[in-house]
Amino acid sequence: MYKAPIDEIAFTLKHVAGMDGALTAGRFGELGEDLVDAILSEAGRFATEEIAPLAEIGDRQGARLIDGAVQTPEGWRDLYRNWIGGGWNGLTAPEAFGGQNLPHMLHVAAMEMWNGGSMAFALAPTLTMGAIEALEKHGSDALKATFLGKMVSGEWMGTMNLTEPNAGSDLGALKTRAERRADGSYRIFGQKIFITWGEHDFTDNIIHFVLARLPDAPPGTKGISLFLVPKFLVNTDGTLGARNDLFCHSLEHKLGIHGSPTCTMIYGDGRFGAEKGAIGYLIGEEHRGLACMFTMMNNARLAVGIQGVAIAEAATQKAIAYAKERTQGRAPGWSGEGMSPIIEHPDIARTLLTMKALTQGSRAIAYACAHAVDMAHASRGDEARHWQERSSLLTPIAKSFATDAGVDVASMGIQVHGGMGFIEETGAARYLRDARIAPIYEGTNGIQAIDLVIRKLPQSDGAHVRGFIGELGQVAAAVRASNRQGFGETASRLDAAIADLAATTEWLLAALGSEKLADALSGATPYQRLFGLVLTGVYLAKGGLAEAGDGKQDARISLCRFAAENLLAETAALRDRVVNGAESLATARAVLN
Amino acid sequence: MYKAPIDEIAFTLKHVAGMDGALTAGRFGELGEDLVDAILSEAGRFATEEIAPLAEIGDRQGARLIDGAVQTPEGWRDLYRNWIGGGWNGLTAPEAFGGQNLPHMLHVAAMEMWNGGSMAFALAPTLTMGAIEALEKHGSDALKATFLGKMVSGEWMGTMNLTEPNAGSDLGALKTRAERRADGSYRIFGQKIFITWGEHDFTDNIIHFVLARLPDAPPGTKGISLFLVPKFLVNTDGTLGARNDLFCHSLEHKLGIHGSPTCTMIYGDGRFGAEKGAIGYLIGEEHRGLACMFTMMNNARLAVGIQGVAIAEAATQKAIAYAKERTQGRAPGWSGEGMSPIIEHPDIARTLLTMKALTQGSRAIAYACAHAVDMAHASRGDEARHWQERSSLLTPIAKSFATDAGVDVASMGIQVHGGMGFIEETGAARYLRDARIAPIYEGTNGIQAIDLVIRKLPQSDGAHVRGFIGELGQVAAAVRASNRQGFGETASRLDAAIADLAATTEWLLAALGSEKLADALSGATPYQRLFGLVLTGVYLAKGGLAEAGDGKQDARISLCRFAAENLLAETAALRDRVVNGAESLATARAVLN
Repeated sequence: MYKAPIDEIAFTLKHVAGMDGALTAGRFGELGEDLVDAILSEAGRFATEEIAPLAEIGDRQGARLIDGAVQTPEGWRDLYRNWIGGGWNGLTAPEAFGGQNLPHMLHVAAMEMWNGGSMAFALAPTLTMGAIEALEKHGSDALKATFLGKMVSGEWMGTMNLTEPNAGSDLGALKTRAERRADGSYRIFGQKIFITWGEHDFTDNIIHFVLARLPDAPPGTKGISLFLVPKFLVNTDGTLGARNDLFCHSLEHKLGIHGSPTCTMIYGDGRFGAEKGAIGYLIGEEHRGLACMFTMMNNARLAVGIQGVAIAEAATQKAIAYAKERTQGRAPGWSGEGMSPIIEHPDIARTLLTMKALTQGSRAIAYACAHAVDMAHASRGDEARHWQERSSLLTPIAKSFATDAGVDVASMGIQVHGGMGFIEETGAARYLRDARIAPIYEGTNGIQAIDLVIRKLPQSDGAHVRGFIGELGQVAAAVRASNRQGFGETASRLDAAIADLAATTEWLLAALGSEKLADALSGATPYQRLFGLVLTGVYLAKGGLAEAGDGKQDARISLCRFAAENLLAETAALRDRVVNGAESLATARAVLN
Repeated sequence: MYKAPIDEIAFTLKHVAGMDGALTAGRFGELGEDLVDAILSEAGRFATEEIAPLAEIGDRQGARLIDGAVQTPEGWRDLYRNWIGGGWNGLTAPEAFGGQNLPHMLHVAAMEMWNGGSMAFALAPTLTMGAIEALEKHGSDALKATFLGKMVSGEWMGTMNLTEPNAGSDLGALKTRAERRADGSYRIFGQKIFITWGEHDFTDNIIHFVLARLPDAPPGTKGISLFLVPKFLVNTDGTLGARNDLFCHSLEHKLGIHGSPTCTMIYGDGRFGAEKGAIGYLIGEEHRGLACMFTMMNNARLAVGIQGVAIAEAATQKAIAYAKERTQGRAPGWSGEGMSPIIEHPDIARTLLTMKALTQGSRAIAYACAHAVDMAHASRGDEARHWQERSSLLTPIAKSFATDAGVDVASMGIQVHGGMGFIEETGAARYLRDARIAPIYEGTNGIQAIDLVIRKLPQSDGAHVRGFIGELGQVAAAVRASNRQGFGETASRLDAAIADLAATTEWLLAALGSEKLADALSGATPYQRLFGLVLTGVYLAKGGLAEAGDGKQDARISLCRFAAENLLAETAALRDRVVNGAESLATARAVLN
């Protein structure tokens, strides 16, 4: 059973991702280390003791649509009540609306643990938190007064309604329409698909955030508006009024995250209410809905990356426990009686160490991204811009590298279990099934790669990414300067990998500069992985260098060395693929016809 | 829906894997190209028209245990009847027992197509074929007379009972016991798990091949005997007699291949028959059962590799079809109206080409392995030994590389489908669920790697593998000599990859020679992948060089070039992992405690 790795998470936050520096410099206000530790400890306890035990039943029963209402798995409604009872829903929300206004770093750390307990369950508040953010930043005071407090407390949950059958990655194609009404509200008509937690029994009201198009909207993404559309209208005294004209038409039958209802939502077909059309309230300006969504989507992308970290961690824990217990054959050098535990076989050890390195690398990338988000909030002027660019750069890498790691690590976890891994009751297969959605939703990892290359690399004319790569080189230099034997060839391996990253980055910037867009896009995915691998090596090294006084430094150094000497050589192949691969890719496309 | 790629398969058999040469040299007796084409065409038709349409219902309904009997999915029993009605079960079986004695190459080609239609269904005869082989090679004349004819026709199916709760990869630990009876038969007692198609309604009788230990057996693998244990005893006139004392206790609830019952079998608990103990008949000699199993297991390993090829092919077909139809965004250079099909996006094209290259590479490796099996059968003396060593060398690579490709390609296929890929009704997810067992059963891919390094490389003191690597170099030279522009950098890329393979092979042989077993085993899995990648490049090049007169040579050359310039660079990283990775792996193992 999953056990939240509180110490490891605290270490990564403080010593790798930058929290220590931020706390010392007072960038997080009066937040101190004691409170950080207390929050992590309690969030971890909740994940281990409350959420994890209900994960399996959630997978087995799934969410069910009965007479138009969604019934969540046994025990989940109470679990949610307990969870909001702990005040967890408002961790990062503004204090004015009952939130705790804590740093995003703490939030992602807690989210990792809740997702480790059950990804399907933790998805529910993830969506609400995005909705809170959109409302708080772009909503009118009247809307905030009515909805924000109850969303911050978790009494009402929020959803994001973007996707339609013909508008997924390309939101410009969406067809849901909005009509203006005389009283300033709108009527919404259309169908939305893949709406996560679009309908459920956790809360009395559900607040939908819906993208739609006004009759006079310009075509494409510049004609999309964002509306708040509650399941039940809210009276002026805050009590629930009439049912709004929207409902959940059906649930998807999915590979994983069975406990999480994925809904097709119908707006405005007249099933409810006297007049057709779901009543909605504009968020931000007309036709500017996508801008409102974007902030929210960036953080949602990081939140999905965190799911990858969580599954990787859970799968690794499970595989290590099994490999220690299961005996088969005799490993070389095994001197015990009878068969050795399979963890003694070098091939199994290689798999487990790879799982561990990918998990910790992904975690560090995601937390560093959250740190940049926090620093951007805590800064002004050039400094804010610097951190804004840093979080923008890290977001696609955190999302893609961590979610790919989630899938790969879960698959390796099955393999370590042998035949037992294929049996559902073992639980290893569920991790793969759950993990498999994360590289897809909130922008496929291919979309992330495009975003990384064409929008993030050119930030400040390439100066930001170059500066960042320079910082990475300093970590390699620090490893060399440390003179610690345990690092082995880490310094030179890091130098080589960072050089691959730098050269590939320059090649891509040059391709973009000379308008060779297709060439740049051909290499986007290998480049994204290259960046993630380099960051894995660097952040593991940063962890190895840190003197946390917990007696684990040697272990961290040896895991870093394993990653440097066993995983980083791939960067040369990825560089080659970007720099030399585009022409053969272009030529071979005819094969697909 | 899956469509058997008959032309592609015929091309690979003839022009890449060596069938043309064997036919011309008369190594397959009177078999001619016309008959080969007719068999492929009809096997493919059966896969496309009869099996594939029943795959989805098989997955959805699964096999069910009702009152001790296994009910197969709707339509599957008739499907099996039609399949044996076509004479397919005895394709490679001896003519004396009603078989067609055709080459193994044809068999694996047909098996690929049936598995492409439904892996869960095609598994059923796979096991029977292994059982036929064991009986034919090692059984007494009396046993053959009673059982072989009906197993060859498919009227009765066979199973392989190896695994027990504490004996999976390590069969030496098995506990099922056999007792001698006065009449020369035996009584079997014990529990076997993970028995594929151990119980079902396809046939009236099921012939179990069971590994067990006699009371005076030496410990470990040298004390295991093989028994034939029929579900129903057979009277002297060939009619069915009493029910034997064995039954299916339960079915596993698995990630995939739901249509295939995976049984826990109980032998000799007294549920059936007057006297306790399932009656069994010895195959081969007492205590020499593992040797009887081994031939069978080698071919079973190749058969599992074929499952990987089949799933990769099916997943690729599905993803290409979806990517042509689904429109989102505008790809660079897209001049059509509105959104472009996603296949136009370079990142999607890269994914699809990678899927195609891995599929075709895996297919070629598996077919080349089958060719070696056939040539060993058709030769004598040194030549037979040469081909025996070739098939032994290729078997672990075919099994592991193709099954890893099955999983990776199926996962990429889901990704290409975006959100739809996660929805079960789409069918892309089933491929991943089904594929995931193949790297595990019939010896995990880690076990294959150990076998490759410690048993296969040292064949003829390393001369065999060295000779083979020399042959690979000749293909690279032929690419260079062909002077065809379309190959791009293929020749130099192949040279570099083959040099990586050669150097890594020498390093491993030296490590084995100096008894550094742990070092050699630490690199076994990366080495296995390195070998598979090199073979993929070489066999795609062989295909590109072949002048088949079908107008597809340019396409083959461009796919080969894509693989050479986009996939082969990984070999350097894999070499590095083997040659330089062992020490950091050994050191880091402490991290796992």
